[in-house]
Amino acid sequence: MTNQADIHTLMMGLGERARLAARGLAIAPTDQKDQALRESAALMRVRKQDIMAANQKDVATAKENNISAAFIDRLTLDEGRIDAIADGLEQIALLDDPVGTKLAEIRRPNGLVIDRVRTPLGVIGVIFESRPNVTADAGALCLKSGNAAILRGGSDSVHSSRAIHQCLADGLEAAGLSKDAIQLVPTTDREAVGKMLQGLHGNVDVIVPRGGKGLVGRVQQEARVPVFAHLEGICHIVVDKSADLTMAKDVILNAKMRRTGICGAVETVLIDQHVSSLLVPELVDALVEMGCEVRGCDRTTSLDDRVKPATEDDWSTEYLDAIVSVRVVDDFDQALDHIGQYSSHHTEAVIAEDDAVVQRFFTEVDSAILMHNASTQFADGGEFGMGAEIGIATGKMHARGPVGVEQLTSFNYRVHGKGHTRP
Amino acid sequence: MTNQADIHTLMMGLGERARLAARGLAIAPTDQKDQALRESAALMRVRKQDIMAANQKDVATAKENNISAAFIDRLTLDEGRIDAIADGLEQIALLDDPVGTKLAEIRRPNGLVIDRVRTPLGVIGVIFESRPNVTADAGALCLKSGNAAILRGGSDSVHSSRAIHQCLADGLEAAGLSKDAIQLVPTTDREAVGKMLQGLHGNVDVIVPRGGKGLVGRVQQEARVPVFAHLEGICHIVVDKSADLTMAKDVILNAKMRRTGICGAVETVLIDQHVSSLLVPELVDALVEMGCEVRGCDRTTSLDDRVKPATEDDWSTEYLDAIVSVRVVDDFDQALDHIGQYSSHHTEAVIAEDDAVVQRFFTEVDSAILMHNASTQFADGGEFGMGAEIGIATGKMHARGPVGVEQLTSFNYRVHGKGHTRP
Repeated sequence: MTNQADIHTLMMGLGERARLAARGLAIAPTDQKDQALRESAALMRVRKQDIMAANQKDVATAKENNISAAFIDRLTLDEGRIDAIADGLEQIALLDDPVGTKLAEIRRPNGLVIDRVRTPLGVIGVIFESRPNVTADAGALCLKSGNAAILRGGSDSVHSSRAIHQCLADGLEAAGLSKDAIQLVPTTDREAVGKMLQGLHGNVDVIVPRGGKGLVGRVQQEARVPVFAHLEGICHIVVDKSADLTMAKDVILNAKMRRTGICGAVETVLIDQHVSSLLVPELVDALVEMGCEVRGCDRTTSLDDRVKPATEDDWSTEYLDAIVSVRVVDDFDQALDHIGQYSSHHTEAVIAEDDAVVQRFFTEVDSAILMHNASTQFADGGEFGMGAEIGIATGKMHARGPVGVEQLTSFNYRVHGKGHTRP
Repeated sequence: MTNQADIHTLMMGLGERARLAARGLAIAPTDQKDQALRESAALMRVRKQDIMAANQKDVATAKENNISAAFIDRLTLDEGRIDAIADGLEQIALLDDPVGTKLAEIRRPNGLVIDRVRTPLGVIGVIFESRPNVTADAGALCLKSGNAAILRGGSDSVHSSRAIHQCLADGLEAAGLSKDAIQLVPTTDREAVGKMLQGLHGNVDVIVPRGGKGLVGRVQQEARVPVFAHLEGICHIVVDKSADLTMAKDVILNAKMRRTGICGAVETVLIDQHVSSLLVPELVDALVEMGCEVRGCDRTTSLDDRVKPATEDDWSTEYLDAIVSVRVVDDFDQALDHIGQYSSHHTEAVIAEDDAVVQRFFTEVDSAILMHNASTQFADGGEFGMGAEIGIATGKMHARGPVGVEQLTSFNYRVHGKGHTRP
């Protein structure tokens, strides 16, 4: 399908059906939504061979196109991965239903009682790249939070996503819900993404992009509806002069090397000059031993000749790799200035024993997640006890930090009167 | 100033100074912010004559331009109105400071303690029309919530706004805060509004338009940053067949006639056919006596010949005047369908004694504020116990309903560890 008018009609139809499905979902009982999730999981297990066969088509195309091994690894589904996706659906079914939860109760002197109650957002558009599991994860989180989902996957995983989506659609129908509650955009034409970003005539309430900087940047630039996203995770660890240096080393190694490709991995370490001569050589020893390249400022390179000189670009680069930049700072203020200049407002950590320093860090650093004496790799909805997350947001509006089922809701005010008129 | 390049430079400078001021405000103690508010109020009282003199210039220009009497009334400041503005500043000083409030505490099995704490949003752009008091009200609400404000008033009230703004700037300085915390755009060139809507290079976090449908519509259409607003308030009252009809009449009269020009005034009444013959004549009697025009569907006109026939346009018109439309509906479902089609998602009310109907109303109607047996005119931050409000939002993201100091905040996560590394 390449005809622009056809894509317009197709996408507007998707939007209208999603809005209609959202009305039904908003009042669907928790049991019914959970049943749909469990039916979908069961179908995924039953259809494992079909899903793998569909996935093989995508993998074969990727190989023909000489796509990287890392990419093919992300794309590939085996029995274990399909089980994991089905497990994920069942876990989302076990989460508390946020819809209908009372967030606040206001009792007014005139006798009015005002409840603030969680409601779904409506329709959530999810735009993702190669990982076919996002079809299930994102669709399930939207469903649990009472929202209709419009999913747009990358062309690389089209057959896999369709096979997984069919399980969701059939699971919805088995539970008596509209299969339009989770729709997969049937075309991989890029114009379809443009239509979603324009909001499908008011029928998309929020867009969640799942993918690399290119995708997220385009979505943030073009979207005419709110976006939950982070463009990148340039995360910092500050080692204060009051730090426990053994703890500092352990936390930095974990924050960098546990997994280097995730957004919560640390990219830059800022070390107070009073402790730099003690910490830097030992830290570099450990990093180099684990296969990590270290780039540093002049003071860092002078402390250890295995450190390569950092350029200005290093301070604003999300490596997503076994590379870390290190800067020795005059004091805590200079560390805060550095973060103010280079942070992507995702996650930062301070290693310090001085409570006043921790307090300043918590109040003066403007990022979604701030850690004290803990690894930046805890920046994750699961680690926050939210169950699954659809992503991490660095914007300050509505959802900030991990976006779980609660963050996919709005609220309204329900006012209980007894014939109250306003004087 | 008409040179586009000059306006660009001017506005970008405003944005940069606002961002810098916001950093200071985010960590300013409550006492200091409250002192600034009280100093500003005191200055307004001291400078009453100067403010009235400035206001007279605006009024004289308006009269020369043959502007309507209602407009000139909104624009005019006398001693009483200036006192009321100063009182408002002092009342905002008395509100609880939302910044730093703990919203949630999550204790994880691994010992991590995660606090969710309120933080300011950053920089708030306020675009308003003729009412000069918005300068003080909006500026004060932003200040109390730790946000820097960029205020852009209409050309009609330029002298009045400047005189009021000078009190705020001097009040900020007297309290030791940057006067850039509340800036007034010094040009009335419309291009300045365009720049604000583009976000001043990331230095505006949210826009609040205060004015008529023309202004709000333009802002919602053009803004590249989030907007807290309502385009219009097409509010409905549903009279269920289980309603107490005396209560229904009293609530409808109040909801329409207490003040006809506010967004929470009712525009359409939907009456169940089982009670329409009892209610309509009595209701029309009372409305007509109070000077209200009644327009109705065929069934309504057949019940009372003082009712004029409603056209399709009536169901989607916010009268902001002593006019109401009435439709007799088959049942509660038809009332919900009508609201789904015509509501502006602001405020709706149901008059009913049947709990099941009330419950359906609360869960199925998708508006910011839902009332049971209470007048729609209670849709107001003050009536909700929030103190002052900067406006009412009908969007579902972040702020919904009245926007008070709490709604002008974001939050972040502060994670307390003891050297935690992630397994």
